[in-house]
Amino acid sequence: MTIKIGILGYGNLGRGIECAVKQNDDMELAAVFTRRDPATVKIQTEGVPVYKADDAVAHKDEIDVLILCGGSATDLPVQTPEYAKYFNVVDSFDTHANIPTHFSNVDTAAKESGKIGIISVGWDPGMFSLNRLYANCILVDGSDYTFWGKGVSQGHSDAIRRVKGVKNAKQYTVPVPEALESVRNGENPELTTRQKHTRECFVVPEEGADLAQIEHDIKTMPNYFSDYDTTVHFITEEELIRDHSGIPHGGFVIRSGKTGWNGENKHIIEYSLKLDSNPEFTTCVLIAYARAAYRMNKEGQRGAKTVFDIAPAYLSPRSGEELRAHLL
Amino acid sequence: MTIKIGILGYGNLGRGIECAVKQNDDMELAAVFTRRDPATVKIQTEGVPVYKADDAVAHKDEIDVLILCGGSATDLPVQTPEYAKYFNVVDSFDTHANIPTHFSNVDTAAKESGKIGIISVGWDPGMFSLNRLYANCILVDGSDYTFWGKGVSQGHSDAIRRVKGVKNAKQYTVPVPEALESVRNGENPELTTRQKHTRECFVVPEEGADLAQIEHDIKTMPNYFSDYDTTVHFITEEELIRDHSGIPHGGFVIRSGKTGWNGENKHIIEYSLKLDSNPEFTTCVLIAYARAAYRMNKEGQRGAKTVFDIAPAYLSPRSGEELRAHLL
Repeated sequence: MTIKIGILGYGNLGRGIECAVKQNDDMELAAVFTRRDPATVKIQTEGVPVYKADDAVAHKDEIDVLILCGGSATDLPVQTPEYAKYFNVVDSFDTHANIPTHFSNVDTAAKESGKIGIISVGWDPGMFSLNRLYANCILVDGSDYTFWGKGVSQGHSDAIRRVKGVKNAKQYTVPVPEALESVRNGENPELTTRQKHTRECFVVPEEGADLAQIEHDIKTMPNYFSDYDTTVHFITEEELIRDHSGIPHGGFVIRSGKTGWNGENKHIIEYSLKLDSNPEFTTCVLIAYARAAYRMNKEGQRGAKTVFDIAPAYLSPRSGEELRAHLL
Repeated sequence: MTIKIGILGYGNLGRGIECAVKQNDDMELAAVFTRRDPATVKIQTEGVPVYKADDAVAHKDEIDVLILCGGSATDLPVQTPEYAKYFNVVDSFDTHANIPTHFSNVDTAAKESGKIGIISVGWDPGMFSLNRLYANCILVDGSDYTFWGKGVSQGHSDAIRRVKGVKNAKQYTVPVPEALESVRNGENPELTTRQKHTRECFVVPEEGADLAQIEHDIKTMPNYFSDYDTTVHFITEEELIRDHSGIPHGGFVIRSGKTGWNGENKHIIEYSLKLDSNPEFTTCVLIAYARAAYRMNKEGQRGAKTVFDIAPAYLSPRSGEELRAHLL
């Protein structure tokens, strides 16, 4: 009996899910649903059907867990509560400020349908959140630090592409090494936005564009760049494709705290990720939580969940006995 | 309503629990139980009674969770199943090979009494185990690496003290930096015992002892030192007390894995600890899981549990809403 996985949305995340399913022997890909014309969507797994997203509900009995691979801005706020009426669902909703509302909407739908909806799965929110939680519960008297990168920020790359005279661009978020070192040394620094990260931009200008103006427009862009030390490199389209086609990312969650009768002992807990492919790693996390959704629902659990609510053993295909014998 | 904590055994761990309880506003120390004469045990918290361990059961209604602070060799295999008949218990049982038996014994006792017994809590087993589990579930195709140190190994220090001519000693386990770097770079090295850790010994010899003989006896000791590159430093008792009185420890859990349709993308997950006080950090973990034991038992759960079985939210005094709003 394998867990039958459905994918809704065949972009970077959808393709990542397809790869992750291939690595997990207890799962199989049952169907892909798309808002495009299914005839134009070519997937990698042989023999798996591609259906119109509008027809998903008709296939609900063929799917154990539907993984929602849309975006957080407009897709997931609608899709996750809607599909939770019919499916166990997992999403990667990452608009931190709107998580409470999203949780509530999914919870209502999933409680009514008797399904499980796990929201905000991935690495931040997701694994980084888990590490913040564990570290806060252990080191009660302490400070939290999260650094992102080195990695590609899709939002910042998009912002640069909207600058006049820019043909294409890629932006990397880079943690400041001195800030990281200070935190690791338990110095508990108070860090400004500028002291934590720098921003590095690789820009392909349109022919004849005013390079000085582009650089000025990027560096002074409010919210995105004005609070950071930003570097702008002008390169050719060929160089962009050759050197910057990947979607690497990563980061660091660090908690620095004190223990002892008078706080005399210092401790550092650090969790870090170094990822060649942000979407593929995210989907590996999604797939592990899809297994949890399936198993918890089989036990009769229902409603919205986050990574905080799920006992780690649910993520593994191995039995409790095996886990205790080999990983504890 | 605070959670009433009992401590059984007032050594390094017991004292650590006492400090940790002080940091957690939702808890109070209710009693300390000792096998020594209670009149000789002076604790730091005012107004808390010290009782004979033999009388613990008489106080069972005053304690929500009893934390067992004995050793894994002889204390916990007996104590944890015994006290689980009367109390919710948490222990730090760390003899990896005997965990399945210990789990089974505690499970039987706790299921019968309707209590919760959480075993093998701390950092290894404990937080390191959790990180191995999460990382294995995410990066299915990968390799695990655990490095310990730099830190004091009590077992190895004890072994040196048994060598003829040794008055006192402290041993540090040290990860080999080149091995760590290779793992972090995703090179997936196959590492021998010698390639992963070195051992550094600070030895106070007895007057007139044969130093060359001591060094030889340490370096050739099977299991403990013969498979490692070991350094022996002879120092005075004063130097040992001045420079080596702490109990620091730490380590690294790293998983290196591949994703993508053809395994084309590499990823590194790393969790590390840098601890000034091994027992105080361990007890901070124990106290967080004591909260979980209390809450899960209130919900009607019973039996033996490990860190794998416990949803992270149970560790925090904050509500689900607060956690989602602030840490997710």
